[in-house]
Amino acid sequence: MKYAIGIDIGGTNTKLGAIDEKGKVFKRREFKTTNYKNFSTYMDALAKSVSFITDSTEGECMGVGIGAPNANYYRGTIEYSVNLPFGDCAHIVETLRMAVGYEHIYVTNDANAAALGEKIYGGAKNLDHFIVITLGTGLGSGIVTDGKLLLGADGFAGELGHVCAIPGGRICGCGKRGCLETYVSATGIKRTFLEMLSKYNGMSSISEVPWEKLDAKVVEDAAKSGDRASIDAYAITGAILGRCLADFIHFSRPSTIFIFGGAAKSGELLFAPTRAAMERNLMPVFKNKVKVVPSELPSSDAAILGASALVWNAL
Amino acid sequence: MKYAIGIDIGGTNTKLGAIDEKGKVFKRREFKTTNYKNFSTYMDALAKSVSFITDSTEGECMGVGIGAPNANYYRGTIEYSVNLPFGDCAHIVETLRMAVGYEHIYVTNDANAAALGEKIYGGAKNLDHFIVITLGTGLGSGIVTDGKLLLGADGFAGELGHVCAIPGGRICGCGKRGCLETYVSATGIKRTFLEMLSKYNGMSSISEVPWEKLDAKVVEDAAKSGDRASIDAYAITGAILGRCLADFIHFSRPSTIFIFGGAAKSGELLFAPTRAAMERNLMPVFKNKVKVVPSELPSSDAAILGASALVWNAL
Repeated sequence: MKYAIGIDIGGTNTKLGAIDEKGKVFKRREFKTTNYKNFSTYMDALAKSVSFITDSTEGECMGVGIGAPNANYYRGTIEYSVNLPFGDCAHIVETLRMAVGYEHIYVTNDANAAALGEKIYGGAKNLDHFIVITLGTGLGSGIVTDGKLLLGADGFAGELGHVCAIPGGRICGCGKRGCLETYVSATGIKRTFLEMLSKYNGMSSISEVPWEKLDAKVVEDAAKSGDRASIDAYAITGAILGRCLADFIHFSRPSTIFIFGGAAKSGELLFAPTRAAMERNLMPVFKNKVKVVPSELPSSDAAILGASALVWNAL
Repeated sequence: MKYAIGIDIGGTNTKLGAIDEKGKVFKRREFKTTNYKNFSTYMDALAKSVSFITDSTEGECMGVGIGAPNANYYRGTIEYSVNLPFGDCAHIVETLRMAVGYEHIYVTNDANAAALGEKIYGGAKNLDHFIVITLGTGLGSGIVTDGKLLLGADGFAGELGHVCAIPGGRICGCGKRGCLETYVSATGIKRTFLEMLSKYNGMSSISEVPWEKLDAKVVEDAAKSGDRASIDAYAITGAILGRCLADFIHFSRPSTIFIFGGAAKSGELLFAPTRAAMERNLMPVFKNKVKVVPSELPSSDAAILGASALVWNAL
């Protein structure tokens, strides 16, 4: 049996898995990223985990795919990541190749990995033009055109979380204002709910929940119980996402847009206003042609699936 | 000598030329599109003009490229064009092939042709990732990623004139509001100047020019003579264009953005505020990396050059 190893490097945890071509995960491993203070000691631990998987798995390992923040596919690097103690430019592909010896080792950012995961294992198997939007603390994106990941001139294309959704709008962590992810993400939903709470002067079934305890799930549950402020927060989120999706369609005309992540699980609460706003903002030639659907990747394994897809995609 | 024929189909005129691989135009022909009332009679005239060029030109004709509004590259059609009497779906490639017999006949919209023209003959010869923005009555765009024209799932990708620049903003001919081309185009500059004239209560050196006589060139000349309302109109146009270019960079990360058309000739009047706004709206990872420059195609022949580039691009 042939398999690929998928690695998901997060600021807190690192997860690995051995995955076959159909997306079956049959070996898992996990360790704390935070246990390691620099790139060198971290890589020793990562190489050991990779060797543990290959030593204890029957079959042929075809390569290793890595999903990580601030990763550059072309250069095989992780650059200027604020959540990893890796310095300005960590040559992760080269370092891992020297340690474990495989030819096919690739790295890309989490959202690009999610897009490839969707293509290899999920709902985009037969699609050449699609976009995956990942909703978490922020908004990530992976864009596929002509069957290939859109990487751009330097490997950093596809940062749709930072297009300008509202000129002069909310302050974003990137230093700009009005970025899409300040409105459309778990954090964005929370911020919009606060505006609604202000608008309705505190009239909400979750007005007693303090800022620190508030998250998109709390707002979702309240909305599903009929709380007006919470319903409005999701409606506004969908309206902004839908308008921006329309812009993306004017750019690359995907056949499908997949939404991945916690906020995508709220179902029609987010999807209905998103689709309505998207259609409203499309030129006639694009209307009623582009699907907006939840990702078909299982969320628990999505990150390692996406990472491993880098290998099958390259083979 | 090998040459390609480039055809530019406009609502008023149809222009043809024989063009060699270096972009030299050595045979031209032109007729009134408006002389023909339907697709069939128009195509007879077009085929005759193509034959005239091939009969009177020494060398080998490698094929025919056509630039036209509402053209679909995949299907070889012109669809729902409001300015051409061609009906809902004119099979122009198939019809011309039956009449003149060449294997390599292609059609695409004007802005996509401009992008290929830039790649084959102009400033994008060695570039794999770039965008061409054409400024005329409206705003067109041709996007090249990984060395190929981005056409999307149905051939209509790259309609950047209709991304939403100002939510709820100006009424656009497409039926939407706030489209980029309602602000950034010859028409957009005129509309913005009118707002400035209102803001300054008529204080402008061109306040006596009526709406019908006002165009981007009049505003440009006034701005270059120091007229505050006109300078502001260009500054605002550049600020909106620059912010939207930043969004496009977050999408496909081109190395260069080319600006083509009359408004591009105003020079730094438009380019300076455009570049400033673009840089201000970029994530740190993209700052000071993407060039914004005028197109290098000669404007008089740009349309037929772009159309003929379809042939060299396919060969």
